[in-house]
Order: sequence, then structure tokens, then C-alpha cells
Amino acid sequence: MPALGNTMKKPLSSILEGIAPSITMGITSKVTELRRQGITVYSLGAGEPDFPVHEKAKLASIEAVAGNMSKYGSVEGLIELREEICRKFESENSVSYSTDEIIVTSGAKQGLFTAIQALCSPGDEIIIPVPAWVSYVEMAKAAGAVPVTVNTSKESGFKLSAGQLKAALTPKSKAIIINSPANPTGAVYSAEELKAIAEICIAEGIYIISDEIYEKFLFGSSEHVSIASFSDEAKDITLSVNGFSKAYAMPGWRVGYIGANREVINAISTLQGHCISHTSIVSQYAALAALSLGEGYIQEIVAEYSARRELVLGFLAEHDIWCPEPDGAFYALCDIQKYLEKGGFLTSSEFCEALLAGSQVACIPGEYFFADGYMRISYACSRETLATALSRIGDFIVNL
Amino acid sequence: MPALGNTMKKPLSSILEGIAPSITMGITSKVTELRRQGITVYSLGAGEPDFPVHEKAKLASIEAVAGNMSKYGSVEGLIELREEICRKFESENSVSYSTDEIIVTSGAKQGLFTAIQALCSPGDEIIIPVPAWVSYVEMAKAAGAVPVTVNTSKESGFKLSAGQLKAALTPKSKAIIINSPANPTGAVYSAEELKAIAEICIAEGIYIISDEIYEKFLFGSSEHVSIASFSDEAKDITLSVNGFSKAYAMPGWRVGYIGANREVINAISTLQGHCISHTSIVSQYAALAALSLGEGYIQEIVAEYSARRELVLGFLAEHDIWCPEPDGAFYALCDIQKYLEKGGFLTSSEFCEALLAGSQVACIPGEYFFADGYMRISYACSRETLATALSRIGDFIVNL
Repeated sequence: MPALGNTMKKPLSSILEGIAPSITMGITSKVTELRRQGITVYSLGAGEPDFPVHEKAKLASIEAVAGNMSKYGSVEGLIELREEICRKFESENSVSYSTDEIIVTSGAKQGLFTAIQALCSPGDEIIIPVPAWVSYVEMAKAAGAVPVTVNTSKESGFKLSAGQLKAALTPKSKAIIINSPANPTGAVYSAEELKAIAEICIAEGIYIISDEIYEKFLFGSSEHVSIASFSDEAKDITLSVNGFSKAYAMPGWRVGYIGANREVINAISTLQGHCISHTSIVSQYAALAALSLGEGYIQEIVAEYSARRELVLGFLAEHDIWCPEPDGAFYALCDIQKYLEKGGFLTSSEFCEALLAGSQVACIPGEYFFADGYMRISYACSRETLATALSRIGDFIVNL
Repeated sequence: MPALGNTMKKPLSSILEGIAPSITMGITSKVTELRRQGITVYSLGAGEPDFPVHEKAKLASIEAVAGNMSKYGSVEGLIELREEICRKFESENSVSYSTDEIIVTSGAKQGLFTAIQALCSPGDEIIIPVPAWVSYVEMAKAAGAVPVTVNTSKESGFKLSAGQLKAALTPKSKAIIINSPANPTGAVYSAEELKAIAEICIAEGIYIISDEIYEKFLFGSSEHVSIASFSDEAKDITLSVNGFSKAYAMPGWRVGYIGANREVINAISTLQGHCISHTSIVSQYAALAALSLGEGYIQEIVAEYSARRELVLGFLAEHDIWCPEPDGAFYALCDIQKYLEKGGFLTSSEFCEALLAGSQVACIPGEYFFADGYMRISYACSRETLATALSRIGDFIVNL
């Protein structure tokens, strides 16, 4: 009842003026609400794996619940989980962290949010190659930092070059965010490309926030390399960010983690202790069990994603829609410019809204990733859903 | 290996210079670590209820796990949970919120952290009556706001008066935090005291962050009143913050919530969408079931706390240790000045460290609550633990 409210009340924080709500979370909410109303929606929106959580992880969480593991835990996370994360970094990423170089977070997202706040004084700059995930820029703003977006080119497969990084540096540069495999482009940086970036960052003393959440989703001959594995110097300036939402299909459980030098981990821990205390203990036990699943589990999942990817690429070829070759992650960033023109849409948002309203298919408009004229398709859904959704998109664009 | 690290790297955020880690979380970690080493510790430290989570809540979470409720949810929380929270506010607090005036958070702590960030532009002032919980001041600093602590008096039972509030106001004042029942003092504000504060805030247009996490823990004739229930104008400037950690003994699960006007909820939601997405879905289902437990469950718990409180007050009287009459919450803020002097301790921290090392009893030093010369006893533990711990404290101070 605004009329009865207090018209004298002071304005909210000025930082909110520059911050947009998370579009991917917003579309997830919208899809949930439509489904609650009984409407069938084919969602290629959120990066939300459709697999159920593995029985082993579910069982571990049930045991934690039954065993009354409901008390406060350490801010840095269960020590057993941190030990397992150290083993994982060592064996899968060739990086040696000790348990006090690890912090468990409420999803990789909160890890990134708090890490950025821990790194950046107000006015510090964070270099963000775009197209990029929606939240990086907003997290920087929330920390009072300045997001410096750098447009990458179609020709480079939307990857930042060493030259572009050098050109973006200023005395205010504090960190760069590298996301490989990348959302929304599917780009995977080679070891050489990453090394060139790391060398510049080492020389400049700026931090690399390496978001490796999609590391398991690799196609063809592409390989994932962790920047922290290059050298002690590279490790010292790198925050290796990861989580369980994608590889283990546990987004609703909110578990992520960061490996970094002790000073950085202590700073993140200080802020995290006042922000969330720690993420759910029950979720942490599930994550601990998930880490024991081994490579076989992951290979099976990636094989399925590979089949889905073929479906998407086949559809795009059929309709002559260009997208950068997605070497990793589970997205295709589709160039829909000609269909915007055909349908008289001014923006990809208008296109996506019409697609959702008319064909019940949810996709994310490219402008939210700094990719005007593009639309992101997430293929983290079943092949059946994907086939139906693609066919509906096909009908939609043919009939524009 | 700092020697091999990058000595050129830039400093971390300047905001960290002013922020101390959460002492209560730190002591919880320390106790956990000592116990892992096989040492018996009697913890009167954290405000961590010893009760197991109710079977109904546990079962609901197990059903959520088994039913694969592992996907992303809405940033604002499960709609079913928000509906139930609205009913709770209506029936228990006489405040009518709609579901879009509610947001579910990762514990009341993250609700407070994000709310403060949503309200305060850099440089805005938050009035914090002290003694107070450790995190309020640090949350304000993390948001770039200025915490304005106001010392309350022993004589007032450590409650802020309207006169003190008026004296603390400046053009930069954006919000005040009221915590009733209070941590660490156990103070409960009367309706009249709260109304006097609310009237000033309405006139000034500043927000009241009403932390009501201890609302169920009331002793003798004390009553809890929600500031938002006074009038539409009071409701419009109040953020009613609550959670499941204390009343439902679910701290490890991380579920809290805020009721506030839509503009405030939207702002918090925008930031929360980039910070944590939402708290664990499994935890939210447990919270939903907890809300259905009804008053009988709470009464039984409070009766037990009342017996524990008697134990503590009896012990303090026996040793002639003063504390403000704890009308609510589950803490006693003990004036240990004479024992500091007797033992030659310069600070309560030194006293508490010696008590933990020598007698394996964990308490929180008063200085972390802005109460030098005091020590906080939490009686959220079993009567057996409490009796042993108190007897050990007794031996410790007698033998100083």
C-alpha cells in the first residue's frame, strides 16, 4: 500500500541504480511460475542440468539429515570436503592446494561475489572479456568496482587475446575474469592462450579469477587447463573457482569452492563469515559424496551432452544460423540478427519474449551477455525436450 | 609458498582493513577443530541450539532429496514457503505481508548482509545500539556504510532510548538496527519503547532493520512485539528479519527470511540473485515443514531454555556476577571485571582464552559485542553440558 506508506523515506542504495536483476534467474522464475499455472514450457534458458543428482550424493545428504548434522560448521567448509577438494585439484587440475587454501561457498556464484568484494577496493577495475555470463559485471558493481568489458571478436571465437588484455590495463586494474569453457559462447582457451594472459597478469600483479565451472564439458579434442597449474607465480595470483551445480547437476543445493593463496582465502573467509556463515551442511555432505563418483560418471554425462550438442548444431546448420563452435560448456550463442529483421524485432529480448509467449520456448536474449543480435540456447535438457523446443523455434522463425 | 609467489601482486580490498572475522564463527570452528582432535570442549560459545531438528522437518528434506528437488529455484524462495511465512507473520506478528513482500535468505545473516547493502549507499550511516551481535558493524562496513554505535547503559538494561536515537541522527542516517530479544544482553524492548523509536524513524524516513531471530525465546512476563505491526507507516520503513536457526534449531541448514515493502524486497532480490541465487532448496523444504510445527513445539523448547536460564542465573548469583536480567534470547552477558582484575587479565579475550585452554569451556569475550569487561554465556546447550561448564567456570574463577 504505497499510498499509506512513508513518503519521506530515504532512497535505497545508489549501487542498485546500476545493477540489473539476474536475467537467467529471472527467466528460471518465470518458467517455474508458468509451469505452476499448468502451462508446458520448453526451457533452453537456464544452465540447469536435467540429470537427477547421483544416488550416492543423495544418500549422503539423507544420512547427514538423519544423523542430525544440523549445527553450524566452519566458515571455510567441512574439513573432509576441503581435503577431498584438494585431492581433486591435485589429480584433475595439477594444482597443489592445502586445505587452508580452499573455501567452500554457497555455489560458485557466491564464491565469485565474495571474492570480487575481497579483491576490489571501490574504484578498482575488473577486466571482463565479453560476451560473458550475466553476473560478473553486476558483481563488480555491487563491490563498488568498475567492470571493464572488453569486446572479443567473432573471428577469435570470442576469446580475449593478450594484446586486448594489454590494451585494457590501467593502474586501477585489479583482476581479470577468465571463464573457460565459457558461458555463453562455449569457447575453450588453449594452454598457450591462457599462458599468454597469465604472464601479463603476473607481470602486472593483477589477479586472475578463473571460473572453471564448466571444466568437465569438453567436446572433440578440446582440453581444459587450469591457469594455477602453470607455475607457483601463476598459482599465487589465481583464484580457481568451481562448483557442483553443473558437473554434478546440483544447482539447487548451492555448493561451490575456491582455491587461492592463503591471504585471499582468509579475506574471503572474513567476508563470508559475515555474509552467509557457510553453505548448508547437508549440501556439503552431498558434495563430498559427489566428488567420489570418479571420471566414469562424468564421461557418461558428457557423452549425453555431446549428443545434445549435435542436435543443436544440426538444427542451426539447417536454418543457416551461425554460432561460434562450442568446444565446451553446454550453450550455443546463436546469431539471430536476420530473424530479428525478418520479424521486425528491435532486440533479442523482444524475439525471446515472443518465442516464449507464442511457442512456449525459453531462451536467453544475447544482450544480457553483451551479445546484441544473439540468443543463447542451453542444451542442459533432455534430448526429447531439446528436439521439441528446436522444432518449435524452427516453426517460429519460418513463420515470422 | 609465499617466497615463490608473486611479490608484485596488488593489495586486497581496502574494506577488509576495517573488518574483523566473525568471532562467534571463529570460536565455533576452533571448538570443532579441538573436538576433532579428541578434546572434550564444553561450549557456551555459539548461539547454536543443541536440539535435533524436528523429525517432520527432517522428513520433508529427505523427501525433497529423494524427489530430486535439486534444480534452481526462485531467487525470492519457494512460493509455498513464502505463503507459509506470510501466514506466520499474520498470525504470530500481526503483520500482513503479501508473498512479493517476502524474500527467503541463506540464514537471517545473509538477509541482513544483503539488506544493508540494498539500503546503504557508501557513506550512509547505520545506527547500531551496543552491546550488539558481532556482525552488524562488520556488515555495515562491508557495504561501505558507516556503523554508528550508540552505547546503551546498564541502568536501561542496555536498551536504546528515544533520546539516544535522536542524538545519534545525522543527515546521513539511513537505518537503525533493533534486535529484540537481544543478543548478547537478552534485553526485550517493550511495545512503548519500540513505538517511540518507530515514531522517530517514521518522521526521519529512516529504515528499521528489526532482527527478530530470538522472538520465541521469552521468559517471565516479557512479550515480543513486531515493529511492523504498529501501523502501515511503521510497516513501510521496517525490514522484519527472521530465520530458522534458533527457534527450529536449524543453523546448519541456512534458512532465513525478510518481510519488507516491495521496493526493498526487489532491491534485496536483485543483489541476492547475483550473490547466492537462493538458499538450498532442500533446506527450504525443511523450513516449510518446520513452520507447520505450531506453538506446542515452541512452548516445549522454551520451557527447557527457561530451566537452563535458571541454572545460569543461579550460578551467577552464587558467584556474585552481575548480568542484565535476560528477558529473552538465550544469553547472559556477565560482568567479569572483578575476575579480570583477580586473574590479571587485560581483556575478556585473555580471560576466555585461558578458560578454554585451562578448563575446556568456550565463551565469547564481551569486547566483540562492544562490552568490555563482560563475557557472553550462551545457554543453548543441554543442562548436563551447562552444569559441567558452569562448575568448571566456577573452579576457574575461584582458583584465579
